[in-house]
Amino acid sequence: MHNVHGEIRRWLEPLGACVRVDAVGNLRAVYPASDAPASTVMIGSHLDTVPNAGAFDGVLGVVLAVACLEALGGERLPYAIEVAGFSEEEGVRFGVPFIGSRALVGRVDQGLLSLQDARGISVREAIQDFGLDPQELGQARLRPETCAYLEFHLEQGPVLEKLGLPLAAVEAIAGQSRYELTFLGRSNHAGTTPMDLRFDALAAAAEWILLVERLAKSTAGLVATVGSIEAQPGATNVIAGEARLSLDVRHGDDAARKSAVDSLVQQAREVGERRGLSVRAAQRLDQSAVPMDAFLTAQLEETLRQTGCPPRRMVSGAGHDAMILAEKVPSAMIFLRTPGGISHHPAESVAIDDVAKAIEAGLHLLHQIAPTLRSRTCRA
Amino acid sequence: MHNVHGEIRRWLEPLGACVRVDAVGNLRAVYPASDAPASTVMIGSHLDTVPNAGAFDGVLGVVLAVACLEALGGERLPYAIEVAGFSEEEGVRFGVPFIGSRALVGRVDQGLLSLQDARGISVREAIQDFGLDPQELGQARLRPETCAYLEFHLEQGPVLEKLGLPLAAVEAIAGQSRYELTFLGRSNHAGTTPMDLRFDALAAAAEWILLVERLAKSTAGLVATVGSIEAQPGATNVIAGEARLSLDVRHGDDAARKSAVDSLVQQAREVGERRGLSVRAAQRLDQSAVPMDAFLTAQLEETLRQTGCPPRRMVSGAGHDAMILAEKVPSAMIFLRTPGGISHHPAESVAIDDVAKAIEAGLHLLHQIAPTLRSRTCRA
Repeated sequence: MHNVHGEIRRWLEPLGACVRVDAVGNLRAVYPASDAPASTVMIGSHLDTVPNAGAFDGVLGVVLAVACLEALGGERLPYAIEVAGFSEEEGVRFGVPFIGSRALVGRVDQGLLSLQDARGISVREAIQDFGLDPQELGQARLRPETCAYLEFHLEQGPVLEKLGLPLAAVEAIAGQSRYELTFLGRSNHAGTTPMDLRFDALAAAAEWILLVERLAKSTAGLVATVGSIEAQPGATNVIAGEARLSLDVRHGDDAARKSAVDSLVQQAREVGERRGLSVRAAQRLDQSAVPMDAFLTAQLEETLRQTGCPPRRMVSGAGHDAMILAEKVPSAMIFLRTPGGISHHPAESVAIDDVAKAIEAGLHLLHQIAPTLRSRTCRA
Repeated sequence: MHNVHGEIRRWLEPLGACVRVDAVGNLRAVYPASDAPASTVMIGSHLDTVPNAGAFDGVLGVVLAVACLEALGGERLPYAIEVAGFSEEEGVRFGVPFIGSRALVGRVDQGLLSLQDARGISVREAIQDFGLDPQELGQARLRPETCAYLEFHLEQGPVLEKLGLPLAAVEAIAGQSRYELTFLGRSNHAGTTPMDLRFDALAAAAEWILLVERLAKSTAGLVATVGSIEAQPGATNVIAGEARLSLDVRHGDDAARKSAVDSLVQQAREVGERRGLSVRAAQRLDQSAVPMDAFLTAQLEETLRQTGCPPRRMVSGAGHDAMILAEKVPSAMIFLRTPGGISHHPAESVAIDDVAKAIEAGLHLLHQIAPTLRSRTCRA
């Protein structure tokens, strides 16, 4: 990540931006306005991604922010532009996503700093190990003059490709729940323990994984995923005494999502009860669906129209830093068509023409919103 | 393991035994006969166990061998006694069990030496890292004068406790098959990939785990276990593109075991086909059921009778080094009652009275077989 920051810094500084890394490890670069004091428009996305991922998730949005500055060709606007490259959006390391963008809205508290990764290293220690000071998290907050947040991101799904469109305006981000489920049985010898005397945590986990899949398949708009599993002790010839699983549930409607989660946790308890195992369910995330800013999204549609793209709106099934920023500042997102809908995978890609269209739309939007921004209220 | 070897060496040397560590990492100690040259009776078990195990599996048998020497109180018998503490019986590290005892019967070949652990370290390298020379594996072979092998071991199951017996003679060891199964799907974003467009390797694995359980529950005498699972990439918000599982199948009847394994591999392929995933199945072990030596087992029954234990015979559901030794030398096993049938678990235990009874039986057997051994043929 130090190398990534260094590389992007080398692109930004020649454009006249002032670059720093804030106390949670976000890259932050301010391109000054034509006149000071002025409002700020932030353009950003995240720099981390998942294990064995592709080359575009997150970082494409940061590169597009840099490309928009570049496309200005030295022109200054009546507002400053802050480019943000967020850290720890995915939640891979600590189980909690959006750590970078949370710091901008003041939501990195002592509890979050104390969370530990698989090796027992806390967020606080990870920040220190990276060479930063968690005491200075206050300086990571949004500049109070920030009046808009814009994020470019891969759609990471098949919808735009199916529609034959390069770009879309995101009108809302689906809510999501994450849980850690643990089945606790009893490990024992695989050769000498008769089948009817077993308390096999992995067999219980398997039963529940299929129930998760079944509920999601039978509920419109719901996606539910068990992506991570760990069986202990994890030996060929030992019945698993413990199985720990992740659960990820998303829906555009919060009530539908919560009802699904409650039902799945209940089903896990029923599986456990029937098999004589205990079940622990720990909520790791409960993120409501987040609408994007109506004014900015309408501006974005107009921009798409002006650049020759049919103005399509869609709901994002994936969470994005924009949903964190939207708590404090009017936010908007532009999705780019994702070939094959493939993301979080080495085959992830994007078409060069779609990237060019995104830069064109971004530049258009930056000019289009200039007259309106002075009158808008900041909540940061 | 170096510390364990050192500790046992400190117990054995004062008894007059000559101790070495052979080229595969087995502890080997020879207690001389009253007259040379003489036959040798080997008494042994293994020194490794599984992750998060108890304090008795394997090592109890080695300690009981030492205790039998101790109980001789300096007496020399007309045959030598070799104590063996075998390495790598469980197969946790390299997926293949009995590496230590295989070396005694000449079954550690170049293929086995090239097997790698999870970190890419081969058996050959592990032997070297331990300070031994894989070129010298020949010196690990059974001494040609070895005429009997005796192993004490926890039953690791609930049978003796249910019968109210401290000890039993093992008449045969059930055959076992081990496989590694891999489901290959496609990893993708958990939020944006509709349920009906997924190729979820973990959901496929879950379906198959339940099929394994179902077949074992409905087949008399069969146990089948999936104890280890790994999902890749293994993140909360990513659909698993790959799931790798272990399969352990055991039955006293080889035909019944092979039919079960064939059926389970076929069922995995059917699950894969229905879900659009590919399936790889790799056999890691195919061990036939092994009868113990009829003469020694009858002697053992007589010994049990003499020491006041009802002479019970049983089939071992677990594999033991004795089944490897039995290829070359008449072998016998004594099981000790295992409280709660709990083994491969921190709660594993054994009653002090049962251990005392085992030492008494062992000592009795050593004297009882003395007159018969001179006439018996060695196959080593």
